[in-house]
Amino acid sequence: MLGSNGVHGVSHPRVDDRAGVPTGTASFYFRTRKALLHAIAARLAELDVADFSRMAELADDSSQFTGTAGLARIVMYVNSEPWLTRAKARYELALLAGRDAELAATLAGSAERLYALARDVVTQWHPAESAAEPALVDDQAIATLAFINGIMLTFVAGQPAVDSAEHLDRLIRGVIAGVAGVHGD
Amino acid sequence: MLGSNGVHGVSHPRVDDRAGVPTGTASFYFRTRKALLHAIAARLAELDVADFSRMAELADDSSQFTGTAGLARIVMYVNSEPWLTRAKARYELALLAGRDAELAATLAGSAERLYALARDVVTQWHPAESAAEPALVDDQAIATLAFINGIMLTFVAGQPAVDSAEHLDRLIRGVIAGVAGVHGD
Repeated sequence: MLGSNGVHGVSHPRVDDRAGVPTGTASFYFRTRKALLHAIAARLAELDVADFSRMAELADDSSQFTGTAGLARIVMYVNSEPWLTRAKARYELALLAGRDAELAATLAGSAERLYALARDVVTQWHPAESAAEPALVDDQAIATLAFINGIMLTFVAGQPAVDSAEHLDRLIRGVIAGVAGVHGD
Repeated sequence: MLGSNGVHGVSHPRVDDRAGVPTGTASFYFRTRKALLHAIAARLAELDVADFSRMAELADDSSQFTGTAGLARIVMYVNSEPWLTRAKARYELALLAGRDAELAATLAGSAERLYALARDVVTQWHPAESAAEPALVDDQAIATLAFINGIMLTFVAGQPAVDSAEHLDRLIRGVIAGVAGVHGD
């Protein structure tokens, strides 16, 4: 409801109605509007954790979910349901988080998981035998994360900048290699 | 008010109060809440046009505002006021625009100006004597735009991923060069 209809689309009676529970149920469990929105954030975080552990399983079974190709595949999921509506809900909450430290803390976990994933992919990109300079890995992870966040923003806006995991994979590899190329300039 | 306090922070009486005009003035000019939000979008677009023409003047006078260094400088402004609050207001409106085609159309102008700027910068990056392949320029512009949108998102979230125009310039050059490197893979 938050992802589809925005902050105005969420209210205790509407939650009761959608869930098919007696009027007053949502208010009983989440007394304030703030508590209701925090519960949404906590639920999104829970779904994220489940997605990430499923991804880790897939990565163990198949090379399709490792490296830049795996990252590209994961990002492309955000352009399909239910991830797209979840991403919209996350942006709604992110805007509220600027004025709500507790909400910001709940959302921080998901942001950190995505950063860790970008950093893993960057680390895998470096040949195993060479110790990558930490400042370079930082820059590559920052650039990769900003790039994929920008791409996900185009999905949420309904104007996807890329239409296949292969295309996105190529661009991610470009970003990582390109940042290495200008490092130390 | 929209950028600082979110959609809930905007109402006709609050606008009257902040503007120091008699109660009812905002309602007289913008009858509905929707009209008020559309007027904010139109005003943001107006400020954008003014910023862009000022930038074009600066680019004529100084090389500091051209190329990747100029783009980096412009993006860094978004981490300072009044641009930061304006950027927050724009994200608030962008989330509403998914359910409001007229609002989406008003916002599209600013997005197109930013894309055109990224494309200009990419075109300048190619040596004048060589005709750059259009598909490559597209990919570079898409990647550059996604990257700088992702960076601006970190400003809005209060966790800036870069702290200087020099650092950002280096990363932008990396993204553009890197996408050229993987083109045709």
